[in-house]
Amino acid sequence: MTSPSVCIVGFGLIGGSFAAALKHAGHPGEIVGVVQRAESGVRALEMGLADRVSDSVADGVAGVDVVLLAVPMLAMRGLLETLLPVVSKDTIITDAGSVKRSFVDDARAVFGSLERVVPGHPIAGRESSGVEAADATLFRERKVLLTPAPETRAEAVATVSGLWEQTGATVECLTAAHHDRVLAATSHLPHVLAYALVDVLARQQESEEIFRYAAGGFRDFTRIASSDPVMWRDVCLTNRDAVIDALDDFSRSLGDLRQAVVDGDGTALESTFRRAKASRDGYVG
Amino acid sequence: MTSPSVCIVGFGLIGGSFAAALKHAGHPGEIVGVVQRAESGVRALEMGLADRVSDSVADGVAGVDVVLLAVPMLAMRGLLETLLPVVSKDTIITDAGSVKRSFVDDARAVFGSLERVVPGHPIAGRESSGVEAADATLFRERKVLLTPAPETRAEAVATVSGLWEQTGATVECLTAAHHDRVLAATSHLPHVLAYALVDVLARQQESEEIFRYAAGGFRDFTRIASSDPVMWRDVCLTNRDAVIDALDDFSRSLGDLRQAVVDGDGTALESTFRRAKASRDGYVG
Repeated sequence: MTSPSVCIVGFGLIGGSFAAALKHAGHPGEIVGVVQRAESGVRALEMGLADRVSDSVADGVAGVDVVLLAVPMLAMRGLLETLLPVVSKDTIITDAGSVKRSFVDDARAVFGSLERVVPGHPIAGRESSGVEAADATLFRERKVLLTPAPETRAEAVATVSGLWEQTGATVECLTAAHHDRVLAATSHLPHVLAYALVDVLARQQESEEIFRYAAGGFRDFTRIASSDPVMWRDVCLTNRDAVIDALDDFSRSLGDLRQAVVDGDGTALESTFRRAKASRDGYVG
Repeated sequence: MTSPSVCIVGFGLIGGSFAAALKHAGHPGEIVGVVQRAESGVRALEMGLADRVSDSVADGVAGVDVVLLAVPMLAMRGLLETLLPVVSKDTIITDAGSVKRSFVDDARAVFGSLERVVPGHPIAGRESSGVEAADATLFRERKVLLTPAPETRAEAVATVSGLWEQTGATVECLTAAHHDRVLAATSHLPHVLAYALVDVLARQQESEEIFRYAAGGFRDFTRIASSDPVMWRDVCLTNRDAVIDALDDFSRSLGDLRQAVVDGDGTALESTFRRAKASRDGYVG
């Protein structure tokens, strides 16, 4: 399918940026936005992100080739149930959620199989949210991970891949379980750590001073604590086991460092810090 | 003292940037660099950061009004002992170390009193190090915290403040203990967390993939894990008690979040995330 029409359900940062990137790339297929709040629809039209908008899923998905669900993880199941009776049999369904096993389970429970469902996750984002934050360049040079099931039609995967490639992203496929384990470590864990750090500092007696004396490193480190609380609540709840494993690995490692501080063991501290610096410099550049 | 001559011992990122900022501001007093490696001295002269350089502390400090020590915390004591017999009686001594009680203790042990010693800490930095990374704008709109003792001469504090103000920084005074407690929370703890996170990920079987699938949030979050390992080892060792307290506060908070994940307690997760986001948005902007 070369220029599929697309309905985006959830026109926030991710959904809006997906639309903006397709428009920017000159995608000829129709782009429809399903929004919860009428103002978001008005803004999406004003910003030229959609050809039409609706507050009804049934209206929005009528006749489209691809539906992208860009809503928090715990909203997926209800949305899939709403979709089931109104979506055409040939429509491809994909999503942009941060947890993939949970979406796979929801889709299988509602649709029976993933034949025309292509679970997806663009590894991109920022702290701002809402359609106002939509940015046509958000996915450029980013990775989009797809986790199709064995029964997912190759053509459906190709169509969804083609759309993401138009946004400037690179598409890779892996299993949903593998995705969730890796992302728990690289994304979900850091978000929980950043939230925990800011919260513990905010609750200290000296919190005003603490934030006043915070430097650039702190700002960078805690940036992700400004992310959408509902989205991240849902990630923690739907990727529970992998998040707990990641937290436990981290806590063990932090416990070792704490012991080295208690023992005044400079050699242990320095070697851990050196190893971390080398990894970070090497991999992240 | 309106345009004091300055000797900077340790011509890395902080020392070099201090010199660069003074030169940029047209500071008329002589600027001397004491370097460990001859190449650093050559580069400092080539970059116009110093009027003269030396690999000898005795040569460097001869006749200068102010000595700034910009070396890792555990190198301070030996440096102060080297200074004692060679520095003139009127020379003001200050430092740029991240921990202040430890410097106060070292200075008191070596010099007997802090009469002419002005402990200081510019809250600025980045991951790059060495004289090559020197940047005249590093301290602009940053805070410099001074922790003079009751016996420290007001004129000495004014002279050191005047130098930092020339770099574009704002100077504030507080006690060394207070400084160390606040900075343990806002700076030392985040560095330990970032090092611990990168190290635990690097040691996972899937580490290559983990870093490959890391997005912008992860890059920001772990940037400080690229900081100088020796500097941060010394911070942990010299601010041990405050770092341990900060680690324990954080671990308790993280334990609460872990329990909420285990319990599937979305309300607890969302309210913590919301509180953290509000604090971060409010304080850091």
